[in-house]
Amino acid sequence: MLTKIVEIPTGNMSAAVDLTSEASSFASELGDGLLSVFVPHATAGLAVIETGAGSDDDLMAHLETLFPRDDRWRHRHGAPGHGRDHVLPGVVSPSLTVPVLGGQLALGTWQSIVLVDTNVDNPVRQVRFSFLGSG
Amino acid sequence: MLTKIVEIPTGNMSAAVDLTSEASSFASELGDGLLSVFVPHATAGLAVIETGAGSDDDLMAHLETLFPRDDRWRHRHGAPGHGRDHVLPGVVSPSLTVPVLGGQLALGTWQSIVLVDTNVDNPVRQVRFSFLGSG
Amino acid sequence: MLTKIVEIPTGNMSAAVDLTSEASSFASELGDGLLSVFVPHATAGLAVIETGAGSDDDLMAHLETLFPRDDRWRHRHGAPGHGRDHVLPGVVSPSLTVPVLGGQLALGTWQSIVLVDTNVDNPVRQVRFSFLGSG
Repeated sequence: MLTKIVEIPTGNMSAAVDLTSEASSFASELGDGLLSVFVPHATAGLAVIETGAGSDDDLMAHLETLFPRDDRWRHRHGAPGHGRDHVLPGVVSPSLTVPVLGGQLALGTWQSIVLVDTNVDNPVRQVRFSFLGSG
Repeated sequence: MLTKIVEIPTGNMSAAVDLTSEASSFASELGDGLLSVFVPHATAGLAVIETGAGSDDDLMAHLETLFPRDDRWRHRHGAPGHGRDHVLPGVVSPSLTVPVLGGQLALGTWQSIVLVDTNVDNPVRQVRFSFLGSG
Repeated sequence: MLTKIVEIPTGNMSAAVDLTSEASSFASELGDGLLSVFVPHATAGLAVIETGAGSDDDLMAHLETLFPRDDRWRHRHGAPGHGRDHVLPGVVSPSLTVPVLGGQLALGTWQSIVLVDTNVDNPVRQVRFSFLGSG
């Protein structure tokens, strides 16, 4: 299995960061197999969505609605409302698997792999790419 | 890696379409390994739920509640409220992995693999099955 | 592919049960590869979250808010409101993939693998671990 960690700057704001070019680059010298994308953080997840036409902002805004940054959370470390960042990976998983064919991600035309990082206290995140092939 | 695209009719309504027989058929000549199910569309996802006892309708209805088809979305192409279809895959992922044992999906008795397609503008969808085995 | 089912006591309450030690133990004699964790039940899912600092309780409480145990559900078997347990796996998937390196789960410091079992009628659950390696 080929595996590699990349560092992704996400800044100090809630952010949806497109990882597709990093994932494509990792896969480009490989053959057919499965790409595992895994975020080793407890306050971030991965989504496969369209970017550049408003949907990344829509996703982040709607996650603020569904998981409000208020005082309901038992987890009380970090910035106010940060407890919601710890619940989010239960619904936006930090693990994703994408088929790779001839070194190309088998994504649809409008799909991008996005790091969903709502944590405002960690400006750089790690993402692990791992590839398991068939020969 | 063995891989194949199947076309799934989903009609012009929001639909939860059972893919279990297609997935079982794909796996049936294979041995032990992991089945990747991947939907190469930006407005569809995959769920593993019980079908035929109301829960597929419950899921679709509840997703309408959690992701309302109203005018809150920045993404404004397509039918009114269609922006919510683009956010949904952030929570109902288009990628799923299922263990296969002796050519049989290792699903539980009450589990089915379901294509969640809330997009009313695309009556046919593609689903990619990929199998990575151990021998 | 190496595969094994473990039985997990979850009791008669909605529960988030940490599976990390069971998964680590399964992986410990293996090399590099992908660990599939799969729950063969229609009313349970898997999450990767921090445990022990309130977030597991936060997740379960918030899932009660997002998926209320009321009479809106068409599925009407089991305890009152049990229909919501059948919808939950659409959002908290029963399938998870984790990279393994030298027999160690490549989890982040604060990540645990958690079985999310909101079903009060099944006190013991099965979880399947499967490992696909590269040599």
